[in-house]
Amino acid sequence: MTKDSLRELYVDELKDLYSAEKQLTKALPKMAKAAASEDLRMGFQQHLEQTRGHVERLEEIFGLLEERPGGKKCVGMEGLIKEGAEIMGEDFTEDVMDAALIAAAQRVEHYEIAGYGTIAAYAELLGESKHASLLRQTLEEEKETDRKLTELSEDINVSAEAGTSGREGAQRRPRKVA
Amino acid sequence: MTKDSLRELYVDELKDLYSAEKQLTKALPKMAKAAASEDLRMGFQQHLEQTRGHVERLEEIFGLLEERPGGKKCVGMEGLIKEGAEIMGEDFTEDVMDAALIAAAQRVEHYEIAGYGTIAAYAELLGESKHASLLRQTLEEEKETDRKLTELSEDINVSAEAGTSGREGAQRRPRKVA
Repeated sequence: MTKDSLRELYVDELKDLYSAEKQLTKALPKMAKAAASEDLRMGFQQHLEQTRGHVERLEEIFGLLEERPGGKKCVGMEGLIKEGAEIMGEDFTEDVMDAALIAAAQRVEHYEIAGYGTIAAYAELLGESKHASLLRQTLEEEKETDRKLTELSEDINVSAEAGTSGREGAQRRPRKVA
Repeated sequence: MTKDSLRELYVDELKDLYSAEKQLTKALPKMAKAAASEDLRMGFQQHLEQTRGHVERLEEIFGLLEERPGGKKCVGMEGLIKEGAEIMGEDFTEDVMDAALIAAAQRVEHYEIAGYGTIAAYAELLGESKHASLLRQTLEEEKETDRKLTELSEDINVSAEAGTSGREGAQRRPRKVA
């Protein structure tokens, strides 16, 4: 069936982001577990709570549209999560692992920033102001998370470069597989 | 072998982006071919030229580091390109396809914005100012491409919403597989 309207594309993209967020709720606890820095671990846990809120906002929109959210797997997020899993399987010292986890998490945030930016614009064009407002709230939270990750990275990258964690030399960490 | 320094992570991340850019040089001609809008097609072609320049900048950095660029496949970009290929296989009308291509391309740009932002920060911390300068140039070009895509999307999304292309009604387009 030919899809000939922005509304159909909008629903497709909503489903894509729904799948992305659901995948992320499974990946974030693993990333939190792999993080050595207390601040980073807490950051991932907080973002997990936020992500659950993003899922609920999307479910609210699907309810308003009388559409079902499922039926689409976001292969973009799947690749990003696979990349995160590869990192967690590496034999990095603690600080280097934390720096690498931040790098992976910022790619995830940017995926969502692009995605929500796109569908918020579609919602506005389609006159769906309630949806647009919900989507813009999520977009702002993703941008804020990206900024917080950059802040966290500043200290963590310096520790990784120095090869110390404010502890006695670089800590070896057990190899973890996601 | 335990990787215990930011420098090793930096080289890993450079290889990841090198693979990402190389994959993109193969994907962009397909995206250009799938675009109906002349402006969008030209935009993809121009970005292909730019992407080849990004590959060369990375090769220059590998030369300075006396490292080889290969040996790593960027699975994050692989997922994003797979997502683009899925879109190109959809039976969308021309304007809806163009809107969807922009959505996919902006996810790609954001992946690179996150990636280059990360490694430019690493390069600065490692005292590699020549690398940092090259990486920041690419970062600015990726951001500029993202802005241009947003600009292009404004007209294209309106046409997609109206179901017309300034032509007589929505044009059906032949199904293309990437």
